[in-house]
Amino acid sequence: MSDGIVSISSFTSVASRSAGAFLLSRSDVERLLTPDECIAAVEDAFRQHALGKVPPPGILGLPAEDGGFHIKAALLTLERPYFAAKTNANFPHNSARHGLPTIQGVVVLCDAVTGQPLAVMDSMAITALRTAAATAVAAKYLARRECRTALICGCGAQAAAQLRALFRVRGLERIQAYDRDAEKSHGFAAALGAETRVPITAVTDLPAAVAASDVVVTCTTARRWFIAREMVRPGTFVAGVGADNEDKQELDPALLASSKLVTDLTEQCTAIGDLHHAVVAGVMSASDVHAQLGEIVAGLKRGRESEEEIIVFDSSGTALQDVAAAAAVYRRALAEGGSPRFSFNA
Amino acid sequence: MSDGIVSISSFTSVASRSAGAFLLSRSDVERLLTPDECIAAVEDAFRQHALGKVPPPGILGLPAEDGGFHIKAALLTLERPYFAAKTNANFPHNSARHGLPTIQGVVVLCDAVTGQPLAVMDSMAITALRTAAATAVAAKYLARRECRTALICGCGAQAAAQLRALFRVRGLERIQAYDRDAEKSHGFAAALGAETRVPITAVTDLPAAVAASDVVVTCTTARRWFIAREMVRPGTFVAGVGADNEDKQELDPALLASSKLVTDLTEQCTAIGDLHHAVVAGVMSASDVHAQLGEIVAGLKRGRESEEEIIVFDSSGTALQDVAAAAAVYRRALAEGGSPRFSFNA
Repeated sequence: MSDGIVSISSFTSVASRSAGAFLLSRSDVERLLTPDECIAAVEDAFRQHALGKVPPPGILGLPAEDGGFHIKAALLTLERPYFAAKTNANFPHNSARHGLPTIQGVVVLCDAVTGQPLAVMDSMAITALRTAAATAVAAKYLARRECRTALICGCGAQAAAQLRALFRVRGLERIQAYDRDAEKSHGFAAALGAETRVPITAVTDLPAAVAASDVVVTCTTARRWFIAREMVRPGTFVAGVGADNEDKQELDPALLASSKLVTDLTEQCTAIGDLHHAVVAGVMSASDVHAQLGEIVAGLKRGRESEEEIIVFDSSGTALQDVAAAAAVYRRALAEGGSPRFSFNA
Repeated sequence: MSDGIVSISSFTSVASRSAGAFLLSRSDVERLLTPDECIAAVEDAFRQHALGKVPPPGILGLPAEDGGFHIKAALLTLERPYFAAKTNANFPHNSARHGLPTIQGVVVLCDAVTGQPLAVMDSMAITALRTAAATAVAAKYLARRECRTALICGCGAQAAAQLRALFRVRGLERIQAYDRDAEKSHGFAAALGAETRVPITAVTDLPAAVAASDVVVTCTTARRWFIAREMVRPGTFVAGVGADNEDKQELDPALLASSKLVTDLTEQCTAIGDLHHAVVAGVMSASDVHAQLGEIVAGLKRGRESEEEIIVFDSSGTALQDVAAAAAVYRRALAEGGSPRFSFNA
């Protein structure tokens, strides 16, 4: 069957021998995991990490000629212990050269008592949802309570998830969308405006847009910072989401150095986040970080302490979020019972 | 569908949108990958590694309460570049406590030009076949040409694959099978004797069995060496296959120190192979290793140089072998076209 249609007979006979692992596509994950559930799962994972209940997550990277592969793995105990390993391929020229997404991959979720594979799922939706959930958790604790305006910088694959998650934690009334490619920001404004019924404006004057925003999210592929310290007015919450490898940067090191800085994991941000560049620039060190997000969620460190302080969240993306989101998807799939399964050990 | 029967309708509708990744169970892998093909694939991977054509493979380990998870990942260029990440769960009490195999997991195979997932397959058969293939490649270059007798120590999941692979490279006429559990060695002797039509004897006198063997393979879960230097007669080829983490050991450090020692990857064997224990015991260092297997395959270092020398192969198991075997399975599945597929990105 060279056309990729499933061999129904062989598939059924294999799968019926045991329950098998769930197979979940991108649309399955999007259907099964609501932003609210993902935010709650990610918040809990950060809390558990801060309380010392989670072993250190692991990362492994292998460069390839036109991109690279990254594996993030972690354990997390919920109603039972889970393990997840996410293999993501990151090939920046994919869209232009092959008509494929930049990031592709799968998450393997296992029972961490027996090791049994429980699910194999697309990584794209997991990555978008768990990254947006971290921003929402950070905004919940670090943005001013009364936020009306938000600016999304970078209207690519991550932007919609970021905005949907932000709406779950703050009553935003006006959104600005910025992208170097005006076609993208206009498309995003139209689509998400229709979906959320909140006015979204595509903007081109970045300094004015930043100055007019209570919340600023950067989710671009930039390799050089574009949000300057001078642009950001007192009281703003800035989430730097795009920098997830050592070559990427979105935020002025001077902005980080002069703000209250919260990371997802300080060690990882020192290696690959915006913090990395601020450290390299010599304007701050890891000891200048106010807290890791989990410490604030768990009440071990203070969140926002005044209406005036600028707080920056450096989000590098952690395996903690992946295992939390993947376990939430799995539990939904199990409750629903309608997704296909495959017995690898058959 | 709580009984795990595939939801035919949803599965078909998803899969028919694109070719998708092959889903391959243990029996699929065993059917698609012959020992000869696996040996050739693994031999080529070691050769490429020695010639500097393969980037360094990566490993990542995360301990769990009753076991642990290990990820091995590597790239390998064949007719096109491939990447594979193998996630293996190793839970030693699984059989007694849960009626499950000790090792379970999946291999994710990707195109290394675009990152696209090509296949998700059970790891058990891949691990058995590629481990046995490394032993066969090593025996091909390091055992005496005229080998008639072999001893398999440890009659668990790995033993049959080891024996089948050995038969492809040496004309063995008599096999001895040893296990602390006599029921296992007798069962193995009966089953593999019937399959191979070569006489297989279950033995209990280990020193006598080692002394009577041209080839000795250890594939046990031992944590303390049991093949002593004194047992091994001149000219023997010994393959230590079981030690794949720092707690496992099968071969007397004095045997390693007094033999010509070949590793799969010296750095890895120094960390987790039998070599690790010999180094810890202070009887040798990594610089005493004669060669990595690939260097011998590529003709960069000499293999067997006399009928008398004892040669030991320390096999810790590498991601090179996994990607070579997984790519071979994938190419067969593609040529055959009958295996089920699933589009994760749908």
